[in-house]
Amino acid sequence: MVGGMTEMRVETVTTYDGWYALHDFRTMDWAKWAGASAKVKEQALSEFQSLLGSWQETAGAEEGSHAVYSIVGQKADLMFMLLRPTMKELNKAELAFSKSLLGQYTKPNYSFVSIIEKSSYTKQYDNPYEDPEMRQKLFTQIPMDDYICFYLMSKLRGETYNWFQLPKEDRGNLMFEHIETAKPFTKEVKRIVTGAMGLDDYEWGVSLFCEDPLQFKKLIYDTRFDEVSAKYGIFGSFYIGYRIEQEDMATYFEV
Amino acid sequence: MVGGMTEMRVETVTTYDGWYALHDFRTMDWAKWAGASAKVKEQALSEFQSLLGSWQETAGAEEGSHAVYSIVGQKADLMFMLLRPTMKELNKAELAFSKSLLGQYTKPNYSFVSIIEKSSYTKQYDNPYEDPEMRQKLFTQIPMDDYICFYLMSKLRGETYNWFQLPKEDRGNLMFEHIETAKPFTKEVKRIVTGAMGLDDYEWGVSLFCEDPLQFKKLIYDTRFDEVSAKYGIFGSFYIGYRIEQEDMATYFEV
Amino acid sequence: MVGGMTEMRVETVTTYDGWYALHDFRTMDWAKWAGASAKVKEQALSEFQSLLGSWQETAGAEEGSHAVYSIVGQKADLMFMLLRPTMKELNKAELAFSKSLLGQYTKPNYSFVSIIEKSSYTKQYDNPYEDPEMRQKLFTQIPMDDYICFYLMSKLRGETYNWFQLPKEDRGNLMFEHIETAKPFTKEVKRIVTGAMGLDDYEWGVSLFCEDPLQFKKLIYDTRFDEVSAKYGIFGSFYIGYRIEQEDMATYFEV
Amino acid sequence: MVGGMTEMRVETVTTYDGWYALHDFRTMDWAKWAGASAKVKEQALSEFQSLLGSWQETAGAEEGSHAVYSIVGQKADLMFMLLRPTMKELNKAELAFSKSLLGQYTKPNYSFVSIIEKSSYTKQYDNPYEDPEMRQKLFTQIPMDDYICFYLMSKLRGETYNWFQLPKEDRGNLMFEHIETAKPFTKEVKRIVTGAMGLDDYEWGVSLFCEDPLQFKKLIYDTRFDEVSAKYGIFGSFYIGYRIEQEDMATYFEV
Amino acid sequence: MVGGMTEMRVETVTTYDGWYALHDFRTMDWAKWAGASAKVKEQALSEFQSLLGSWQETAGAEEGSHAVYSIVGQKADLMFMLLRPTMKELNKAELAFSKSLLGQYTKPNYSFVSIIEKSSYTKQYDNPYEDPEMRQKLFTQIPMDDYICFYLMSKLRGETYNWFQLPKEDRGNLMFEHIETAKPFTKEVKRIVTGAMGLDDYEWGVSLFCEDPLQFKKLIYDTRFDEVSAKYGIFGSFYIGYRIEQEDMATYFEV
Repeated sequence: MVGGMTEMRVETVTTYDGWYALHDFRTMDWAKWAGASAKVKEQALSEFQSLLGSWQETAGAEEGSHAVYSIVGQKADLMFMLLRPTMKELNKAELAFSKSLLGQYTKPNYSFVSIIEKSSYTKQYDNPYEDPEMRQKLFTQIPMDDYICFYLMSKLRGETYNWFQLPKEDRGNLMFEHIETAKPFTKEVKRIVTGAMGLDDYEWGVSLFCEDPLQFKKLIYDTRFDEVSAKYGIFGSFYIGYRIEQEDMATYFEV
Repeated sequence: MVGGMTEMRVETVTTYDGWYALHDFRTMDWAKWAGASAKVKEQALSEFQSLLGSWQETAGAEEGSHAVYSIVGQKADLMFMLLRPTMKELNKAELAFSKSLLGQYTKPNYSFVSIIEKSSYTKQYDNPYEDPEMRQKLFTQIPMDDYICFYLMSKLRGETYNWFQLPKEDRGNLMFEHIETAKPFTKEVKRIVTGAMGLDDYEWGVSLFCEDPLQFKKLIYDTRFDEVSAKYGIFGSFYIGYRIEQEDMATYFEV
Repeated sequence: MVGGMTEMRVETVTTYDGWYALHDFRTMDWAKWAGASAKVKEQALSEFQSLLGSWQETAGAEEGSHAVYSIVGQKADLMFMLLRPTMKELNKAELAFSKSLLGQYTKPNYSFVSIIEKSSYTKQYDNPYEDPEMRQKLFTQIPMDDYICFYLMSKLRGETYNWFQLPKEDRGNLMFEHIETAKPFTKEVKRIVTGAMGLDDYEWGVSLFCEDPLQFKKLIYDTRFDEVSAKYGIFGSFYIGYRIEQEDMATYFEV
Repeated sequence: MVGGMTEMRVETVTTYDGWYALHDFRTMDWAKWAGASAKVKEQALSEFQSLLGSWQETAGAEEGSHAVYSIVGQKADLMFMLLRPTMKELNKAELAFSKSLLGQYTKPNYSFVSIIEKSSYTKQYDNPYEDPEMRQKLFTQIPMDDYICFYLMSKLRGETYNWFQLPKEDRGNLMFEHIETAKPFTKEVKRIVTGAMGLDDYEWGVSLFCEDPLQFKKLIYDTRFDEVSAKYGIFGSFYIGYRIEQEDMATYFEV
Repeated sequence: MVGGMTEMRVETVTTYDGWYALHDFRTMDWAKWAGASAKVKEQALSEFQSLLGSWQETAGAEEGSHAVYSIVGQKADLMFMLLRPTMKELNKAELAFSKSLLGQYTKPNYSFVSIIEKSSYTKQYDNPYEDPEMRQKLFTQIPMDDYICFYLMSKLRGETYNWFQLPKEDRGNLMFEHIETAKPFTKEVKRIVTGAMGLDDYEWGVSLFCEDPLQFKKLIYDTRFDEVSAKYGIFGSFYIGYRIEQEDMATYFEV
């Protein structure tokens, strides 16, 4: 296992990488917010609308994308999903909210830093960054569907089953089976996979988008029986939320 | 194990899904509450009664169900169990309490987002959503029993024992044994199982209802020796509480 | 392993169950307490003495038992051990302290909900609840010894060693060995075992009582080499405290 | 493995036990402290000097020992190491600081309750508590070296490697190898091992003392390759600090 | 395995150790900071600039090095990387910030205490501390690259795969393979490895520096398939940040 190692080395896989991504979860301090004066609330919301407006301009110029969700349950109240061409722009957007008046009524609770990633297991490109179809996937607008399901994932490096010691061909076959299982859902459930090796603690984040959250459950349920998920999948938290439309913002924060 | 995989793929199981569920745990800030003026307390409780009243109307219209429990020990003070036809309605109810005056005297500590789930291991339906008996299980009122036992559960994906790699028939047999063990308790202990794959971190939540909490212990004790629990069960926290009746609310919050 | 399962099912063990138990750990907010006026402190302690007085009446009527401990180290400052015939009475006592003036100067940090449990591995009873000796164990006053050692325990369900898949006879033998090891300590170290399956996260709580805390260490040290502890024991936190006598309360809270 | 067990039982080891030990970690609330008036600061420090003075008297009377360290990094600011003949005296010293004015500007974060322990693997005593050399180890003054390294340790009870199922002779051999590895450091690095079975969560605490913290790293590095550490060692947090001398106290708290 | 142990003992590896290192992560309390008066903010920033100035003098005198980063995501806002010849100087710098006015608007969240370490697997030195090339690595200025990736790492001591029971030659071969994989990145990605055995919880910290954060991901991705990472690597949190230049400080803290 040790001698002559370099000949036996497991082949890696090439990835194609797009915009950087930040999933930014915040908890409202409702008691503090309820105690704010009407004037402060108005100022905070108007400032927040300006911030969203500037982000909308960025999206319009195809230099990023964003969406705001209400998270169901106590894991968070708000979640911002932000896509930007550079890490600095990501941090700039994050800090803009943290420093904003509304942001001061929230507490940070979780975030995930990653980058839109396409692996080459199923298809390889010579010039991925020139390919229009690939570019469309790497530098994409966040789908407008009502619901989001975001979850964290790593691959097992167990003493018996070790994803990173499997031959590339086997890994490719397992990914292929996985994609087959997911196929019946492809139309209804959109997907952005972001890679985070070297950037955050879990290796991948998966953002699913759908009009009907039951489809998230059915998709995850079915794929859980795939060999790749059953044997090699390490799953972190699952977050479920729905998009807060511009016109519902006022209602959302009304207290 | 890898070649010819698709032929060997483990068969999944169909689930029938009903109302969405939120188990919402809150801790009272008793010091802050004790410091509130009599007038504020009165207003907070009256507002809370109105909220419960509106939830009662929803239940009356068979568009959901709810119950409020006092949790024993420090894991929480209050627990709301909420059932609704959509995720948005679930979140709306959650936010209504969070924003309420009483809610501002509580701190969030845990929640579980799931959906009422019936598996088809023991019985399959052609048109489950047309079947009155099945509908009665999927869209159900929360039992009025005095005590609740709520716990989280996932199935092991170990390197030796892996639930999601077992053939469907074996999984069915193990579930059948489990149901046999639980049979002596069926009359006294009612049960709502909710599935959370893709929605929350544990795969299932189990809500048991009984007039005598000792039966929870005896049921869990006996089933712990079932092969399905002993080998494949991963258990999260167990929460024990009793229903706060409408007429006991005032006493509960008196300080 | 799966076919013909019901014949092979591991035999469970009958338990005899007594009073419900709450181990309730609190941390003093010493800075806030030091800042309270002499009058508030006096009122808080006098109210607390009344609460202890009413608990003492309950104990006198043999409808429960209680003790208050000072916990060594930062895991907690105070620990209440409470025994009551029903869960509701347990929660009532807990809430009485939480709402009390002194309680408002404490922060909750850990609790354990369980029930006094005697297993039948070593001796079986036809009518345990009629047997005076057994009744004495199930509905018991907390020993008056100076020191308490409280710890949490579950039994391993590993992929190789699985307590809940061992034949009942083997489990009985292992328990017997364990009892033999503990025998030299029986006189000096008293013991109340409470079961929490279905009630709390660990399966058992063990409360040891002694005049000399070194005996706790020697007992746990020796039994750690028992096969049942070495192979199957999962241990949670260990808490060490000493009883705060009624006459030492004033000194304890003096700041 | 189960039948005839008592014959096969693993032999335990006798321990000799000395003073009780508390490692008490505190975090300064620097913002609150900076905001205190000069008068309050002066009073807090003068009160603290008195407390240290009374502890010094205890040490002078050979009824205990203590030292105060500044911990490097954010795990804590201050660490008190306290040795006392009884648990009650330990708790009394702990509470004295908690209630003190300076203590009110700190937050508790971690503590470890244990007792000075010498095992008898390498040498057995008939009357250890009469032996002057052994007494010197069990009831010892904390070394005055500049630096402390404190860490937590338990022994593995794995499904393959299980310390508490190894024959006593093998355990003795492994300990002997460990001591051999540590020998080159014996002169420079002093050591107090405290046992915590039944008293706290980890089984042992190790306090190392040296003038040069690099020696801690070299010692731990070398011993990590010992079979006893490599296979059976479970390590908790490592804390590094340096002794705050009486004359540097004022500077330490100056803000 | 036990008899004749000392002959079989795994050979350790010599390390060469340089400056002590502190990675110090802080979270801004933006709400509190926003609420500070313009005068207080100005004073806090001016005091902070003085502190940085004095650290710059230390660096100029080649008695240490430092850098300040903005961390992307909610793991922290600021990260200080500090190098100093002694632990006491490290703690002095840490305390200087903690006590500073700006420091009072931050909350500690994570730190890592270690020392610059070069192992001798690939090259051995007779007088490493006399060798100019080695000195340059052990007592080094932090690279000025825009981005940092900092992560924690330990080596597995599993029941099957145990790094600290592998022969030294095998460990050397595995490290050699690892270095080969990283070679294509050597030019673009700079690296400071710090060892923390006996000093902190993880065994090593790795600080990578680059102008393009995507290279961090590609490097970690590729090396994850190395046998040493895949089988023996235990990874802690990954932190990504970018250097806040002196001239951008004012903008960073503007709110």
